[in-house]
Amino acid sequence: MLTRKSIGVPEAEPAAGNGILSRRIFLEGALVAGAVGAGFSGASAEPLAVQSWMKVPGAGFAPYGQPSRFEDKVVRAIAPPANPATQGVGVARTPLHLLEGVMTPSGLHFERSHSGIPDIDPDQHRLVIHGMVRQPLVFTVEALSRYPMQSRIAFIECAGNSQVLNAPQPQPLNAMGIHGLLACSEWTGVRLATLLDEAGVDPAARWVIAEGADSSGMSRSIPLAKAMDDALLCLYQNGERVRPSNGYPMRLLLPGFEGNMNVKWLRRLKLTAEPVMTKDETSKYTVLLKDEKAWQFVFPMEVKSVITRPSPGVSLKGPGLYEISGLAWSGNGRIRQVEVSADGGRSFAPAMLQEPILSRAPVRFRAAWRWDGGPAILQSRATDETGMVQPTREQFANDRGLRGVYHYNAIASWRIDEKGEAANVYA
Amino acid sequence: MLTRKSIGVPEAEPAAGNGILSRRIFLEGALVAGAVGAGFSGASAEPLAVQSWMKVPGAGFAPYGQPSRFEDKVVRAIAPPANPATQGVGVARTPLHLLEGVMTPSGLHFERSHSGIPDIDPDQHRLVIHGMVRQPLVFTVEALSRYPMQSRIAFIECAGNSQVLNAPQPQPLNAMGIHGLLACSEWTGVRLATLLDEAGVDPAARWVIAEGADSSGMSRSIPLAKAMDDALLCLYQNGERVRPSNGYPMRLLLPGFEGNMNVKWLRRLKLTAEPVMTKDETSKYTVLLKDEKAWQFVFPMEVKSVITRPSPGVSLKGPGLYEISGLAWSGNGRIRQVEVSADGGRSFAPAMLQEPILSRAPVRFRAAWRWDGGPAILQSRATDETGMVQPTREQFANDRGLRGVYHYNAIASWRIDEKGEAANVYA
Repeated sequence: MLTRKSIGVPEAEPAAGNGILSRRIFLEGALVAGAVGAGFSGASAEPLAVQSWMKVPGAGFAPYGQPSRFEDKVVRAIAPPANPATQGVGVARTPLHLLEGVMTPSGLHFERSHSGIPDIDPDQHRLVIHGMVRQPLVFTVEALSRYPMQSRIAFIECAGNSQVLNAPQPQPLNAMGIHGLLACSEWTGVRLATLLDEAGVDPAARWVIAEGADSSGMSRSIPLAKAMDDALLCLYQNGERVRPSNGYPMRLLLPGFEGNMNVKWLRRLKLTAEPVMTKDETSKYTVLLKDEKAWQFVFPMEVKSVITRPSPGVSLKGPGLYEISGLAWSGNGRIRQVEVSADGGRSFAPAMLQEPILSRAPVRFRAAWRWDGGPAILQSRATDETGMVQPTREQFANDRGLRGVYHYNAIASWRIDEKGEAANVYA
Repeated sequence: MLTRKSIGVPEAEPAAGNGILSRRIFLEGALVAGAVGAGFSGASAEPLAVQSWMKVPGAGFAPYGQPSRFEDKVVRAIAPPANPATQGVGVARTPLHLLEGVMTPSGLHFERSHSGIPDIDPDQHRLVIHGMVRQPLVFTVEALSRYPMQSRIAFIECAGNSQVLNAPQPQPLNAMGIHGLLACSEWTGVRLATLLDEAGVDPAARWVIAEGADSSGMSRSIPLAKAMDDALLCLYQNGERVRPSNGYPMRLLLPGFEGNMNVKWLRRLKLTAEPVMTKDETSKYTVLLKDEKAWQFVFPMEVKSVITRPSPGVSLKGPGLYEISGLAWSGNGRIRQVEVSADGGRSFAPAMLQEPILSRAPVRFRAAWRWDGGPAILQSRATDETGMVQPTREQFANDRGLRGVYHYNAIASWRIDEKGEAANVYA
């Protein structure tokens, strides 16, 4: 039997309206503990049951482990293909609302595929570099494994993530359904600059066409400057070889650039003077604006954030103290600040950012909130090191309009009702 | 058909004997490229085959993804139980030689269990805090999920890792077999200090006894100072809930302390004035010295490193340029420097350290090496921010002796033979 205890504590300092507390609550040990005693779920002790699993030897070892059978709801949501003949065309979303920290388990990394996951034999796979180079080159996976490598923790976000927030009415979706085309891995591979330098790039070349070995031959034109700057040809994801759904045996990582440009199952890099207007970059990935104009080749994903706890399906259990937890990221560099609001954006207070704060990697932010049991609208607003700030939905609509499907990055809102349930709203 | 190309490049700068090059080779783009062209495996291009997997739609989406079927050798090595009745008593080792970066996929995180993996229902599991506290407390998993959390990338290393290097003769084992009781995750959970403060620790308490819910009731005495400093009660590992083999639904993280103290399946924390001399801390985890004395309660794992590439089973393919890649870590803080040698320790040069360099987390180090095809002995030597340096095996033997099984951290050696194969040797 659990009973809540209240153990006389100092008052936590309010920092914004409707119960947002100062982030100093996380920095001052005594205050944290007091706040917890006053509002979290500590409970008085009674004799501890000896459960059945303590009475028998446990299971033996497995060569490759899996999650607990009790966590079988922690899975990606698959958007069913419109046409059964196009199995594998679509997305599988990361269950952001059920995760913590910043790393995404590879089995839950979101997936966007244009023609399913090819079953590639790494011994047969080849990467060619050709076009405007002094010496075309072909690489096996084994040959690439010999090159100097770099590792980097980085997010990948689909350009179409959060597009449903363009809809005139807020849809009844959770953080996974709205924002789940975002994930973070430690990527390890060879600098693209190393390979391009070996091929010898023609000084007149300005673009690199990257093509995948899936049956759609998914391909994008990439500025040579990015390829020479921080692009990685990744062989490893979170320590092990890249997963099939993320490009096995090799994929591009263009830190911060929209997801589809990080071409999976990479088989070809062609140096050119101009972008070649592949089917994938003309039929999609153009940002339609409100004035009948459009932006083409919008590469970095703009500064953005999402509150994952509480969020739809991750509800509050009665009034009291809670931690608001979420992710913030920017394709343009480091996150400088995240602010949270419990009153629909009328007032904000800075959240605590979890170290390390890495460029083009998600940051976990945390804020303390005393929920009084009344209605509330939670928002987070991220600012990156370039000074870019997430716009409100109204500002976003005024600037770009709501007719596009790509690069939506406005402030998102969860309404908390009296039962502690969260819902997607516009505010 | 692949043929090696040589494309006239500047000479890479030697930094230590037998071909170790300056780490500047990684910092100066042109030199890297040149070095690669001169020695790595670039190959001339010919028309690229259209493989079978490009001709058919690929596979559809999976709720929880798995590695490629071509990577089925990348698994943990299980030490078979001496007694079939004690299934689950022993270890499963992380295949360090096949991984890159610093993160360990949760399915490959090493495992040390004293009575197998309990099948714990998280709704039934309880954590009690009692003993020298003002108010004993019982927590459900759900209650703990409401507390403020922290995330931290940290290594866990079994105290008995690398113990086979105490043997009089070097054993024919690989990096996994010798050093594979080491892994790294992003851990997320509640600060133990938060919970202990809520219970109200008696000023006379100095120790915390932590007990697991496995059928061995694995338990250790932990200094209260560590519990109040940076200990975490972890609910999440690499973003998702802690895996069963790593303590589901909750485990301790004592950053830098020997693995077994990071008690898995945690069910009980008892505050005491003295350590209670549990069976696990008296029958094991004592460091036997050469003079018939012993060290008890040796908590932090000392500074250490291992070269994973090349290593036994990860061989060289002919003379030329290679990257030496490995991991370094210290239970006492950050890694300050890693040096590598190709001549058995006669000369060393500094390796490049991959950012971010985090306290009590592994660091990936990389060095460039021009292998001339002759015999070589590769070593790495790590120094941490406290100034501790890995000893040679001879120094370690002189200081402590080679009769212990715990906390072995001397410099390890791989001999490279003329075929490019690596083997465990003493040098």
